[in-house]
Amino acid sequence: MKTLNVDLGDRSYPIFICQGLLENKNLISPYVKGKQVVIVTNETIAPLYLDKTKQLFSDFNIETVILKDGEEYKTIQGLQPIIDAMMAKNIDRKVTLVALGGGVIGDITGFAAAIYRRGVNFIQIPTTLLAQVDSSVGGKTGVNHPLGKNMVGAFYQPQCVVADISTLNTLEDRQLSSGLAEVIKYALIDDIDFLQWLETHIHNLLKRDATDLIYAIEKSCADKARIVAMDEKESGVRALLNLGHTFGHAIETAVGYGNCLHGEAISIGMVMAADLSQRHGWLDNTEVTRISNLLTKANLPINLPAGISSKQMLDLMAGDKKVLDGQLHLVLFKQQANSFISANYEISKLEQTIASFIS
Amino acid sequence: MKTLNVDLGDRSYPIFICQGLLENKNLISPYVKGKQVVIVTNETIAPLYLDKTKQLFSDFNIETVILKDGEEYKTIQGLQPIIDAMMAKNIDRKVTLVALGGGVIGDITGFAAAIYRRGVNFIQIPTTLLAQVDSSVGGKTGVNHPLGKNMVGAFYQPQCVVADISTLNTLEDRQLSSGLAEVIKYALIDDIDFLQWLETHIHNLLKRDATDLIYAIEKSCADKARIVAMDEKESGVRALLNLGHTFGHAIETAVGYGNCLHGEAISIGMVMAADLSQRHGWLDNTEVTRISNLLTKANLPINLPAGISSKQMLDLMAGDKKVLDGQLHLVLFKQQANSFISANYEISKLEQTIASFIS
Repeated sequence: MKTLNVDLGDRSYPIFICQGLLENKNLISPYVKGKQVVIVTNETIAPLYLDKTKQLFSDFNIETVILKDGEEYKTIQGLQPIIDAMMAKNIDRKVTLVALGGGVIGDITGFAAAIYRRGVNFIQIPTTLLAQVDSSVGGKTGVNHPLGKNMVGAFYQPQCVVADISTLNTLEDRQLSSGLAEVIKYALIDDIDFLQWLETHIHNLLKRDATDLIYAIEKSCADKARIVAMDEKESGVRALLNLGHTFGHAIETAVGYGNCLHGEAISIGMVMAADLSQRHGWLDNTEVTRISNLLTKANLPINLPAGISSKQMLDLMAGDKKVLDGQLHLVLFKQQANSFISANYEISKLEQTIASFIS
Repeated sequence: MKTLNVDLGDRSYPIFICQGLLENKNLISPYVKGKQVVIVTNETIAPLYLDKTKQLFSDFNIETVILKDGEEYKTIQGLQPIIDAMMAKNIDRKVTLVALGGGVIGDITGFAAAIYRRGVNFIQIPTTLLAQVDSSVGGKTGVNHPLGKNMVGAFYQPQCVVADISTLNTLEDRQLSSGLAEVIKYALIDDIDFLQWLETHIHNLLKRDATDLIYAIEKSCADKARIVAMDEKESGVRALLNLGHTFGHAIETAVGYGNCLHGEAISIGMVMAADLSQRHGWLDNTEVTRISNLLTKANLPINLPAGISSKQMLDLMAGDKKVLDGQLHLVLFKQQANSFISANYEISKLEQTIASFIS
């Protein structure tokens, strides 16, 4: 088993990465502080892993909340069944919420934990690659607003994260690739060695080779944890983690949540960031191609879905959280695997980039 | 002007207490970090102080959100107009929310600030005595759930608190007394000198003597700040601030939010806590009377409103946040102005206390 400690002072916590962790009661039980556990999952995951998870917490009182599956339920209203169920059962502040599922379940359950009685404990059991490498680290919880993604939420850290890679065996190929987009993102931000490793191991990852998956997840979480530890509340360097995301969120909003997977959207966004960097002379054409090639090998899209207009992209990007005092900050490349945050790009070049990705 | 610093490490902030602060632009402006201010107030306060407050922030872009007045709008739904207005105007993370009003406006606006884009700055301008001595210190923000008060929320600190006691001149007498209940609470928790001062100055406070009001507010905030600094997230000693509140919240829920003012409910609750302590032999009868007398002099009720049953009280109290692992913890007295937190009281005596307060 690999254990990675996310170092955030008194909010530090471990991430456990291994096969078969859902059977390791002795490892997980110490992270439950009271007697009551509430497992939150969705209709897709419940038939697969709910029984196993109940076994994992069988030393405690267990309540279960099963939400509908889909990003479209990641709203303030979608969160209420969790709060209502706990209130109806009169569950007190010593409860531990358990998020069993992908990113949506993690974000919504983490946010419910952040605000129920002003904050209770929670444990994350991410069952998708995307959630294992992304929401496991950094404590970003929240829900969407009709006018923008993740606009309502909190920074809130779990007690521990249990990344049981056995759960990836039931993941659809498209979801696995979506997770790989985030894995590749960490390499592109600032880890050239990991980028090289990924270029030679991407096929093994697609084949779900356990050793390589554990390595890639650990490396991704470590890269993310290093950045988060420097800047927990995203006032500076943490914004690097948004590589591809300002483009990506605009794409997701434009096509409607759920129609384009998150990883697919940021795959396109990362190539757009590379393209824009190249237009400023910061990146070679060959480096842009190298990025596109790796994403393509991971079965990820690198062009905008049909039906999105340039104006729509620009308008949606202008509404992103990374706008500060009216300035849209983007994560761009100054060279391969060396990204930086900038508002000093030419708007005309951004317009050219977007135009060149319209299909 | 009195300035009290609430010491919470990197979340420390000042409370300014004086007359005429709404005219002191130079004092307040440095606490706005970006260019955008959103003033949140309600239909009652807006005609009184909104223009003045807009003047105070006239160096910034200002948006205004006017909510309906009343505790019954302090819900997750009631919070959405603030979020929606900010999203519609595409307001970014550098916004400063300004809560202009009583406790409801402070709680709801603070919570909106805590969760909008995972947290933005806010400034509190409490316009009631209750809000000036209670919500100004401690960072408790949140909304009610149909099954319990303040059940959804966050610990979130403001940039500064502006307690302009001129705003108390438009406060109804009943609201002023409600605020005095919280003032008296701080004295009863552990400040015998302040208790003696209150016994001789309560009439001046009811007459809104400026000097005495400033003293009482400063003393209350300092007493509260001392306790909060020891225990920001309420894992221990901070629970002392709930003196009278477990009884009080049950009363408010029983009669319906808004039918009994918060201070009125905790006035009754504090006498009930004193009565229960006396039944265990921890407090003399004369001390219970002393507490009742002071509250009565402040024009506060000391008996349960008609129509509440014993069973209802017990059931509602069992649903309080102070229940930990099924144990209801109450703040009781071991002697005058010396309170403590205990689950070691006899349930039969609690039942006797409640029965003796039923009208």
